[in-house]
Amino acid sequence: MTQTHAYGTASASQPLGPLSIERRQPGPHDVKIDILYCGVCHSDLHTARNEWRNTLYPSVPGHEIVGTVVAVGDHVTKFKPGDTVGVGCMVDSCQHCASCADGEEQYCENGFTGTYNGRGKENTWGGYSENVVVDEKFVLRVDHEASQLAAVAPLLCAGITTYSPLRHWQAGPGKKVGIVGLGGLGHMGVKLAHAMGAHVVLFTTSPGKQADAKRLGADEVVISKDPAQMAQHAGSFDFILNTVAAPHNLDAFITLLKRDGTMCLVGAPATPHPSPNVFNLILGRRRLAGSAIGGIRETQEMLDFCAEHGIVSDIEMIAMKDINEAYERMLKGDVKYRFVIDMATLG
Amino acid sequence: MTQTHAYGTASASQPLGPLSIERRQPGPHDVKIDILYCGVCHSDLHTARNEWRNTLYPSVPGHEIVGTVVAVGDHVTKFKPGDTVGVGCMVDSCQHCASCADGEEQYCENGFTGTYNGRGKENTWGGYSENVVVDEKFVLRVDHEASQLAAVAPLLCAGITTYSPLRHWQAGPGKKVGIVGLGGLGHMGVKLAHAMGAHVVLFTTSPGKQADAKRLGADEVVISKDPAQMAQHAGSFDFILNTVAAPHNLDAFITLLKRDGTMCLVGAPATPHPSPNVFNLILGRRRLAGSAIGGIRETQEMLDFCAEHGIVSDIEMIAMKDINEAYERMLKGDVKYRFVIDMATLG
Repeated sequence: MTQTHAYGTASASQPLGPLSIERRQPGPHDVKIDILYCGVCHSDLHTARNEWRNTLYPSVPGHEIVGTVVAVGDHVTKFKPGDTVGVGCMVDSCQHCASCADGEEQYCENGFTGTYNGRGKENTWGGYSENVVVDEKFVLRVDHEASQLAAVAPLLCAGITTYSPLRHWQAGPGKKVGIVGLGGLGHMGVKLAHAMGAHVVLFTTSPGKQADAKRLGADEVVISKDPAQMAQHAGSFDFILNTVAAPHNLDAFITLLKRDGTMCLVGAPATPHPSPNVFNLILGRRRLAGSAIGGIRETQEMLDFCAEHGIVSDIEMIAMKDINEAYERMLKGDVKYRFVIDMATLG
Repeated sequence: MTQTHAYGTASASQPLGPLSIERRQPGPHDVKIDILYCGVCHSDLHTARNEWRNTLYPSVPGHEIVGTVVAVGDHVTKFKPGDTVGVGCMVDSCQHCASCADGEEQYCENGFTGTYNGRGKENTWGGYSENVVVDEKFVLRVDHEASQLAAVAPLLCAGITTYSPLRHWQAGPGKKVGIVGLGGLGHMGVKLAHAMGAHVVLFTTSPGKQADAKRLGADEVVISKDPAQMAQHAGSFDFILNTVAAPHNLDAFITLLKRDGTMCLVGAPATPHPSPNVFNLILGRRRLAGSAIGGIRETQEMLDFCAEHGIVSDIEMIAMKDINEAYERMLKGDVKYRFVIDMATLG
């Protein structure tokens, strides 16, 4: 084991601060990565503060990791020292269930091992740290230019969480796709759906986000609080990706779906949404679905797609010591659109 | 117009009794049908009693109609006098929207015209009557044997309402399909899913229905109130058809779906179901959907499938005058599994 500088917390009530964790020595299939950048996901905050009541302390969050390979095990074939790589939300899975066999490790029937707060072969600590050791199966190749690497980090969670359902429900030319909410996930959803060739409509409650949504790639912006604007889109969407985790009226969006259309939720509210009206599902054979991140193969496909289309996240870079303030701002939605930690500031 | 004997009610608070309605003379595309049998659907009761607050009085329910063609218009090509035919829940639709063009008239974007309580080119009265006049596009061919015709009637609503989603979500060999509830719809769901070759699991709250479910074609019966029995099926279903309209815990069934599995609701509760847990949709990319009856082309396909496989509904025949008592028994679930009115008793 190697002592490693990190930033985390020993309890739900304490702010994050410097601490030391132990990383394993790279095994034959492992890649050791010096972390350059780590994105800040809302899950980091939920975990640090034990809001899902399952946090292992000390807790070191961070699962939007970009870094440089510094060592590889004897059997590693895909990576060599000096490579730029990414690590997302998973660092292991059972590798033998039907979902793993299908390359959908995020639905591993025995439960994948999270990059942090994971209870796999060993407990795991995330990317708010100087380095990480990961089985090469869960390491992604990053082909973006060096100047873009900080803004690549959020692709590893916010990017794949929106890319995967957009691909699964075949967003593309001739399809009308809605994105609900313009935050860390929503702004990636707009960029990706636009790059896939869909007609993109952004739903927001904030009139002030209109111009920004269009800059990011939205063809139309609808203020979802305005019933008249909503009514103009009734029955017209092939697919709606709903990134809003706060409880809200799902029927307002379900009724905008075409026959056989799907609304996919990627955020889970702490308290339930109002129960959706069953008639709205029956009349139109509509579907309400959910989706979790994406598999490793698909995450690589997403990174390649983004590199090819010049897509990165819109970010605000912070120093490690500013993470507690960043959490507070994130809670207020005061970030355009993702914080990324410059890990050189870890000290 | 022709005066026609029927059975219905002039208000929500009155029992059904004899009355007279006017039927149009058959136009060039119309078929006039003497009604032999009419099934009794829960929607009949909802409408007679104005429980959906949209009833046109006088109201004559009935949309599970089997009868004999007695006259056809000059341009009718598919039917001739003497043919045995069926009429289901629809008698008209716009014929030019995308859904109608796809043969999915049940999702007509301008609203289909119901067989009763419809507000199409004219108001409509249903099958509790001596005859009905219907555009041939909405008339179905019935190839069952003469002795089966009463039991064919419920196929026109209960049959197609379960057949259509089972086909749409590809119930068949190698698929594990759940049917929730063993009533008018559920017992058809079990028969049809079994005939399609799926492995069929019937969910019921009533241990007493076990033997009957197996007789109807269920491979397994699960008492849905028993968490231990339910847990044995976690994550194992390709598709669940939920026929229960009473509000209930949907999560108990959603968690039984495999990755990418769907639970389809065909009953709409008068008060909402408890709101489904979003995590259960996200973890497994599961879907909650709805489905309404089926299109005319598919209804014909269903009737042909049933004729080929010897499938009819399990029925209890009643005389027209006993309809009010039948409604009360239907409310208690005291029917195995569908009432059918012998229209010769209309008098």
